[in-house]
Amino acid sequence: MDTFEAIRTLLAVRNYQDKPVPDESVRRILEAGRLTGSSKNGQPWHFIVVQNRDVLQQLGSLLRSGSYVAQAPLAIVVAIDNTPYAVSDASRAIQSMMLTAWADGLGANWVGFGGLDALKPLLGIPAAVEVFAVLPIGYPRDIITGHGKKRRKALAEVAHREQWGQPFA
Amino acid sequence: MDTFEAIRTLLAVRNYQDKPVPDESVRRILEAGRLTGSSKNGQPWHFIVVQNRDVLQQLGSLLRSGSYVAQAPLAIVVAIDNTPYAVSDASRAIQSMMLTAWADGLGANWVGFGGLDALKPLLGIPAAVEVFAVLPIGYPRDIITGHGKKRRKALAEVAHREQWGQPFA
Repeated sequence: MDTFEAIRTLLAVRNYQDKPVPDESVRRILEAGRLTGSSKNGQPWHFIVVQNRDVLQQLGSLLRSGSYVAQAPLAIVVAIDNTPYAVSDASRAIQSMMLTAWADGLGANWVGFGGLDALKPLLGIPAAVEVFAVLPIGYPRDIITGHGKKRRKALAEVAHREQWGQPFA
Repeated sequence: MDTFEAIRTLLAVRNYQDKPVPDESVRRILEAGRLTGSSKNGQPWHFIVVQNRDVLQQLGSLLRSGSYVAQAPLAIVVAIDNTPYAVSDASRAIQSMMLTAWADGLGANWVGFGGLDALKPLLGIPAAVEVFAVLPIGYPRDIITGHGKKRRKALAEVAHREQWGQPFA
């Protein structure tokens, strides 16, 4: 899928078909994260690939805002080192991974922010790193039209020309 | 350009040809940022498009680690609202914009982290928002091979299978 087309149409997906994610896609998604740029090339990220059905269900029960992880065939748990840029760096990597999944016909969502360190014992994640996000991934259950479903501010609201307050559009 | 191919080959570019960025690309890059997903759909970002040669030179002289902005035909200054997720959200949008530029044959870099609020008077940016990044963008001056130029940790170092410490690869 064309790069801008993937960015333009990417939607959060929370319902998945009961169908495994091909190994080739899993690997491509991980490579997308791994190859992402980061501040000072710090690469302060860790990706734990979860495909075990029992563990996925436990993840779903632990995640306040992500119970649907239990239904996904795959989740990538993203943990970060304690560095000043890790949140920013990992966010870029997650964007790369979600776009790559989308381009492969898969849907993902970002479950995050708050309470994720509760997953640490389940996955054996050490104290020194922080659990930053969980990305459930699978083939979308619903038909995705991609068009007209995004609620976004108008371009003139977010883009300025030369000076703040001069709308770009 | 294919999505994963763009992600795989994307490099930081700091030398630009003396050639303007087509309006169509400027608009596509901005759209890529605007259409990016954000936590609770907050869209806490602002993009100031700078193409004025004098202003670009002033940006270059103000940016400790980004003097090469002075040579770029275009810079997008990214400012963020004061929200808990703004750093993460804007980082995703920047990744979308850099990928879109790259897919259009352009190169960009992320100048950021520290001292950027010094740009506020020049661009009329209000006190309530923070200057988060400057993205100089232009046609790369040097030939970009894309292959073998990325220094990244091996997949087995960053990807784990089911449990922390079990290498994925």
